This record gives sequence, C-alpha cells and structure tokens, in this order.
Amino acid sequence: MTPKTTFFDLQTGFAPETESVSLKRSLSTIKSIFSNQEKAEEILSSEDRLVYEFYDLGIPEKEGNIAYGTSILYPGKVGDEFHMTKGHFHTILDTGEVYYCLKGHGMMMMENPEGDVEYREMRAGHSVFVPGRYAHRTINVSDTEVFVTFFAFRADAGHDYGTVESKGFRKLVVSDGQGGYKIIDNPKWNSI
Amino acid sequence: MTPKTTFFDLQTGFAPETESVSLKRSLSTIKSIFSNQEKAEEILSSEDRLVYEFYDLGIPEKEGNIAYGTSILYPGKVGDEFHMTKGHFHTILDTGEVYYCLKGHGMMMMENPEGDVEYREMRAGHSVFVPGRYAHRTINVSDTEVFVTFFAFRADAGHDYGTVESKGFRKLVVSDGQGGYKIIDNPKWNSI
Ligand SMILES: [Mn+2]
Ligand SMILES: [Mn+2]
Repeated sequence: MTPKTTFFDLQTGFAPETESVSLKRSLSTIKSIFSNQEKAEEILSSEDRLVYEFYDLGIPEKEGNIAYGTSILYPGKVGDEFHMTKGHFHTILDTGEVYYCLKGHGMMMMENPEGDVEYREMRAGHSVFVPGRYAHRTINVSDTEVFVTFFAFRADAGHDYGTVESKGFRKLVVSDGQGGYKIIDNPKWNSI
Repeated sequence: MTPKTTFFDLQTGFAPETESVSLKRSLSTIKSIFSNQEKAEEILSSEDRLVYEFYDLGIPEKEGNIAYGTSILYPGKVGDEFHMTKGHFHTILDTGEVYYCLKGHGMMMMENPEGDVEYREMRAGHSVFVPGRYAHRTINVSDTEVFVTFFAFRADAGHDYGTVESKGFRKLVVSDGQGGYKIIDNPKWNSI
C-alpha cells in the first residue's frame, strides 16, 4: 500500500475530508449495554440519541499494519450510568492498544478474563496503553463535554464484542449525584 | 503488564510527569545526516544545537504491544536543508507506523528498498500512515514553529538506523529561498 494521510480535527475528532464515514452508535443499537433497561426504553420512547461515533479507515488487517482513528463519545447518561462504548476484547487476545485523549474527561475501563479490573481516568493529553488480554471500553464522565480520543492498534487484532455483550463488564461507572462519578460493582455481571 | 498512563502535552509534546526522559538528538550527534557538512561544522564551531527529541516509554518489545510517544522537532536549517530526524527502517521491515501531527508544519519522507519515494506534508491534525517496508524520517519545514507528532508502531518492530546512515535518503527537503520548501535529488545518495 501507499502512505495514507487523513485529517482528524484535534478539537472535535472529526475527519471531514476522508472518504471513510464515521461509524455511529445510537442508543437504539446499543441499549443492551446499559444497566437500567427501563430508563433506556423510556429515553427511546421519545427519541433516539447518538452515543458515540468512530472512524475505521479500512487499513488492511495485516499484522504489520496499525489501524487508527478517532472516537467521539458524547456526554449523557442512561439513568445514572454514563455514556460509554460497547467495549470489546481483541480477537487476537494478547494485542494491546493505545488511546490518546484529545479533549474531554473520560475513563478507560479494562478487565481481563482472569477478572483483573483496571481503570484509568483520562483528560486531554493523557495517553493510556491498554495491555493485551484486557477488554476495554471508554466512558464519558463529563456531563457537558465530548470525550475525544485518538487510538492505534495492530490492524489484524480483530474485535470480539460478543463476550462483553453477553457478560457485561464487572464494574459500572455511574454518577455520584454530586457532579462526579463513582465505580460500582455491576449487579448484572454474568460470571457464566 | 498493567495499563500505563502518560500525559503528553497536546501543544508542546512534552511529558513532564513521566519517569521516562526524552531522548535528545543534538546536531553534534547527528551531523552526518545533513548534506552540507561544512555548514554543520561551522555551526558546531560556535555551539551545539538541539535538533529533536522524542520519548521512548519502554513498552515491552512484544509483537502484541504498541510503542508510542511524541517527537519534538525544532525549527532550523543546516545550510539550506531543514532540520530532520535520522530516519530508519524497521528491523521487521514490513511493519508500519502512524504519526499524528499535534503542532507545526512538517514533512514525512519515505522510501522503500525498491526505490519508491513518497512524501506527505503534515500540519496539526494530519495523520500519516507509513506502510511497512518504508524508511521514514520527519522534517520540520517551518522556519519558526516546532513540529510535534504523536507516533505509534508495533513494539517489536525494531529500528534499523544503519542503512539510512550509510546510504542517505534519495530526496532532500531544502529551502526554496522564498520561505517555502522544495524537494530535490540527494546528490550524495549512495546506491551501493
Ligand atoms: Mn480495541
Ligand atoms: Mn519508525
């Protein structure tokens, strides 16, 4: 392949000049990830909502390539739970990923199959390296600001969304009722 | 390993909170990369000069890991040739790398062993994917502004600086005498 240039706005994360469109995840398509299903349905009964979007530039999925792009996670809550991404393991489990926060205030939530849970707060300028074997999801803990990250991983890593979809993450990030967040056990976490 | 958080200032590229120090490349240590050796010696006869610095966070060199950091390339010229990095092939030749420009105005210069030359201009917000097999070097084409990039590559890729050191790159980026740059053939390029 030849070199690829893509402009990602450092403030918004958007790539208006690329032929790749961002992949949009609205609440209706990911509602099952939120703990409070009644609240999700209540929101959806009036209108759908964009939770996040991200770019997939279509870098060939070769082990020597790096896939990268931006992720744009909008502020909002479903009940007391903050907007978040679906989260996934990599299909090649032991492949890591780096995220670099361009804007906002978020959280990287991680857990591995052994049950080790790790989370890292991120503000503009913070990079987080997610080691191999860790499922990962980002969470926007701001009530007002978009959470924007630039990410990079081995292009052949692959995405396993199913495991997280059926089991959930062990921890939830919810409002503390005072403008901040707290980490709580996921009452619906499925150990099977 | 456990997740790693590192703050890289989005404006300057500096990571003041990390235990990793930046690796500094002064003119005295890289003078041989510049075309005009007489000019390099003349500059060094009065004082040395920092050309660039970058971070190596020491991410373990495993094939599933991503190594990443920032590179800070200072403005300046040696004769009519702009400040640039040494440039390298990856030891695992067919491994790529993504660079994301945080600030400034630069150039990614690339060439593969077959002699294909590619170059891409970069300003804040531009990402460039350097495909596998391409030697790569960044060049600051601004007379006044620092050129700052965030980079990510497979942590086991390895660096081969020797080939570029002995052969040079096929093209040079030099001042056009009117505040801009031009790309010219490297008269000293060594095809052997
Ligand atoms: Mn991932
Ligand atoms: Mn490299």
